[in-house]
Order: sequence, then structure tokens, then C-alpha cells
Amino acid sequence: MKKLINSPDDVIAEALRGIDAADENVRVDHENRVIFRAEPTRAGKVAVISGGGSGHEPLHGGFVGVGMLDAACAGQVFTSPTPDQMLAATVGTDAGAGVLHVVKNYTGDVMNFEMAAELAVEQGVRVETVVVADDVAVEDSLYTAGRRGVGLTVLLEKIVGAAAEEGRDLDAVVAVANKVNENGRSMGMALTSCTVPAAGKPTFDLPEDQMEIGIGIHGEPGRHREPLTGAKDIARQLVEPILADHDFAGSETIVMINGMGGTPLIELYLMYGEVKALLDAAGVRVARNLVGNYITSLDMAGCSVTVLKADDELLALWDAPVRTAGLRWGL
Amino acid sequence: MKKLINSPDDVIAEALRGIDAADENVRVDHENRVIFRAEPTRAGKVAVISGGGSGHEPLHGGFVGVGMLDAACAGQVFTSPTPDQMLAATVGTDAGAGVLHVVKNYTGDVMNFEMAAELAVEQGVRVETVVVADDVAVEDSLYTAGRRGVGLTVLLEKIVGAAAEEGRDLDAVVAVANKVNENGRSMGMALTSCTVPAAGKPTFDLPEDQMEIGIGIHGEPGRHREPLTGAKDIARQLVEPILADHDFAGSETIVMINGMGGTPLIELYLMYGEVKALLDAAGVRVARNLVGNYITSLDMAGCSVTVLKADDELLALWDAPVRTAGLRWGL
Repeated sequence: MKKLINSPDDVIAEALRGIDAADENVRVDHENRVIFRAEPTRAGKVAVISGGGSGHEPLHGGFVGVGMLDAACAGQVFTSPTPDQMLAATVGTDAGAGVLHVVKNYTGDVMNFEMAAELAVEQGVRVETVVVADDVAVEDSLYTAGRRGVGLTVLLEKIVGAAAEEGRDLDAVVAVANKVNENGRSMGMALTSCTVPAAGKPTFDLPEDQMEIGIGIHGEPGRHREPLTGAKDIARQLVEPILADHDFAGSETIVMINGMGGTPLIELYLMYGEVKALLDAAGVRVARNLVGNYITSLDMAGCSVTVLKADDELLALWDAPVRTAGLRWGL
Repeated sequence: MKKLINSPDDVIAEALRGIDAADENVRVDHENRVIFRAEPTRAGKVAVISGGGSGHEPLHGGFVGVGMLDAACAGQVFTSPTPDQMLAATVGTDAGAGVLHVVKNYTGDVMNFEMAAELAVEQGVRVETVVVADDVAVEDSLYTAGRRGVGLTVLLEKIVGAAAEEGRDLDAVVAVANKVNENGRSMGMALTSCTVPAAGKPTFDLPEDQMEIGIGIHGEPGRHREPLTGAKDIARQLVEPILADHDFAGSETIVMINGMGGTPLIELYLMYGEVKALLDAAGVRVARNLVGNYITSLDMAGCSVTVLKADDELLALWDAPVRTAGLRWGL
């Protein structure tokens, strides 16, 4: 295993130390492994928090800051944070207007966020939850009942964070979250496996001439494995199931080409060109885009495509100022 | 070779197509393979241009935009652009105040930018050049007389771009470039090789238990190869030669932990924690930092450290607004 770490046991604690030192937008509660905004949530603002297993950086900690998340809980690699962590994040960010939990649809995350919400409610905090489930690759998976939550989480956290930042109440913020969740779809693929530090070897074997279509962000299997083809064919295999699953006509879209962590940017831009050509041909209008590593799977090579149908409201929230380590504009 | 491409011959042309479609800050001259700002350089502003072999993205094309570069020339992977490309970028950006060429110190780049400068001068354009040479790993290398230009290029393009943006004349912009060049040092290491598309196989072999210290950004050899150690030891092996080479006392610094393309962000943050601790112990004050993939070597796993001694002038230029795909704040 070739990684820039000291010991597999210390990866998260030491990465959080680096984040705390580097990212001016946050302060880290090292005991609870919660990344909070540097400034406390302002009175009367809805707090938006998230969290999940580590290994997907910049998600979620890199999206804590003005205009996006109020806090993020960091679990062990590919392992849900505990309800205690989520409770600390919830209670620590509530500023009287309630807290939205943004949860990717994995059984452990959903269960633990539910427990945390119950405990927070007992403490008088109003909590609502949105479960992101955008992956069209599989209906159920190794770690989920229902679809997995993947790339749309990034777009949702940006848009919902903006809605909270401009002072909307919890019901209104939830309504925006549901609108994003209903109108976004993703699908990913892998050229290589990833290597979890504690395991020390690749999660799965993927021969030099094979690729995995519909992969999850933990290296869990997708739709099928097949001989490696070119960018044009890969783009088609990701875009077609997305377009088949939702009607993107009649509105603008926000499109993300996301790298899985080990794929260089030059390839992601090349893929954007292919995806954009397919969307153009299908009459899908792209108003905004993101190209880069936003929800990763450690060192996995590969990419995912996310398409979100975005009306004027969602586009305005997308364009609102944001200042985080992972996304920043207007500030 | 596992890459998201169609054919090795088409990588640059197709990636430029994707950049043109994705990046609102730029327009691409596909014939000359020059990435220009979307808006022409405003009259009387010094133009700052750069370029080099592709495969280091976001450098340089991802740094074209307000507050940074006016244009960037894209060569084939790890191959200098031609003088014709550089001439097109120079003539295409000159707005009457002259053009600064930011050149990484590689023999081909230096020679071709010199030829382009001569041709541009014949056309009445005033051209000055800064040759970045910040890599403390080796005195001469496979591709250079003198030190290689690496990570400092990112910081220099940001700072010099800001100086030009605020309307300084060419002599003043050159003075800032020289100040950065004199006060910045870098060193890198690799856990793995990279694979050039046209070659189809890794540039070099690096066994599972070995790492290369002092690597260049084209996979060219560094100081030595040794058994893989941990992040703490790697940080020490990068920071010590930097501190030994320049006096960073008595001033703030800007520090970059740069990923080589295949290393996940979580490891880069962990490395930042280690580097910051070493700098603290040495009494080097860090005022600003960058952690991420900024000057890469395709899919190579590894990282580099850059430290720039920055007085109030350089810090103010660093903080000035910038809007590019690769760096963005204040806009």
C-alpha cells in the first residue's frame, strides 16, 4: 500500500489536524471529529449539517463554510460516523431555527442520523432530514436499501446551504432539498479499485483491460464489468441511464463531471467534452458545470456524471456566494 | 494503460474541447492550442502568459482568467509548446503595455519562449521573461541546465497576475516576478510513476516498497530512491532541503502542499499537518496555504512542498481577487 500516511489507525485524526491547520473556514472538534464553521451559526439561521465515512474528500468537511454546510462529521474511512458525532454537530450548530441533516443513502448513515435526530429532538432541537439517493446504477446495493447517494450530494449541499444562508426557514430549506433530490441523477464508473488504509490492499481486482460500470463510491460493485473502451463510449454508458431515468427537457441543468480521486484533471475535462456533446444531442441544456474531484473514493481512478434539472430558483441558489475549501465563488 | 481517453493522439485536442465547453473564464484557440481569457486583455494592462507541456493540469490553462494569466499555451504531454503557439499567445494578448512570459526552467520551454519573444519583438511587442527555477532537489537535471521550475510557478502566476491586474507597468511586474522567484523553493516526491498516453506504460518502475525523493514533474529522477516510509519522515525529507536552501526567517510565508495527480486529498491534508508542524518548529510563520492538486504529473501519486517567503506586498497580491478554474476567490 503506497500512501502518504503514518499509520492506518491515525489517518483520520491526522488528516483532521491538517484540515484544522489549513482551512480558515473551519474549526475542528477533534474529540467528536466534527468540522464546524469557524464562526458559530448566526442566530435564527437554519443549520445544514452532513457527514459520512471519510475517504470522499473534499466531501463533506471541505464543504463547511459560509454558504454551504455548518458542520460535517467525519467517520472512519468508508464507515458511518456515530450518532454521538452527529448529535454533537446538531446541537453545536442549532441556532434556534432547526437543523437539516443531509444524509447519503447508506444503511449505517441513515440509521445513525435517525438516532442522532431523536436524541437532538429530546434536547429541544428541531431536525429535518433529506436522504440523497441519486445513483441510477442499481436499485438496491451492498450497503443500501434503495438507490445510493452519490454525486448529487455535492450539488444539494451547495444549493441547500445557500437557501439556509439567505435566511429561509426550515420548511423552506427542506422543500429546496427535496426539489434537488427529485431532479438530480448520477452514475459512475471505475478504471481501478481503491485501497482502504486499514485493509492495505485494493478493495477489488479490476484487470488491466476491464472497467466497472455503475460503481459505488466505496468500491462496491455496479452494473457490470466489461472490456475497457474509450471516453466516448464511457460517456454514453453514464449519460444514457441518467437521461432514461428522468425527464431533463424544458429546463436548464447543472452538470458535474466528478473524479474518483486518482484520475487526472485532463481526463475529466476530456470527459466533460464527451458528456456535453451527448447532452447537446439529446437537447439537454447545460447552464452550469463543475469539473474536478468533489466526491471521491480515495485513490480510485474513474469518474461519475451528475445531472440536475435546475429551474431559476435552483440556479440562483447555485450562483449565490460560497466560501469553503472545496467550492468558492463570490467571496 | 487505463485512462479516460479515446486515443493517445487526440488527448490534448479533446481535453481543450472540454475546457472550452466547461470553463467560462476562457476561450480556446484550437488551431494554435492557446487558452485565452474570455475577455480580451484590457488596453494598457500588462499581459501575463505562460505555457508548457500538458499533463500538469490545472497548470497552466486552469489559471487563465481575471487576476492571473491572460493566456496559456498547451504543448503535447510533457512536451514544450512551439514558438508559433507562444507567438500567437503573445501577440494575441498584448494590449500595448507589453507581455511577461512565465517560463518553467526546462530547456525546450526556455528555448521556444526565447524564439517567440524574438519574433514578437520584431512585431513591435515588448516582452520580458521570468524563468522559474525553484526545485531544490537537483542542481541540473535530465531536462534542464540549472534547477527545474515546479510548484512555485503556481504561486508566481497568482501573484504576478495580480500585479498586472492592478495596472502596474511591465518593469514593476517583472520586479514582482523576480522577488517571488528569489524567495520561493520547492521539493517533491513520488510514490508511483505516471503513464504518458503516447507511451502507454509507466515512465519508470517504482517497486511497491520504494519511493523516489526529489522527483521532477515529468517523472524524471530525483535525488534518490529509498524504502517507503511514513508521512512524518517524508515531510522532513521535503522540508529540510527547502529550509537549508533559503532563509525564511523574519517574514511570513505562503505554503503549498501539492498533489501530483493520483494522491487523494485526505493524504494531502495529512501531509499539511506534518509540514506545518515542522515549519512551526523551525520558526517559519505560515500566513497562507494551498492544499490540493495544482501542478500535477498526470496520474502520479506523490506530493510536493513549496514555501515562499512573502512580505506585505506579496501577501496583498496573493489576497487580491482571482477568478480562474483552478484558483478563485473574491470574485
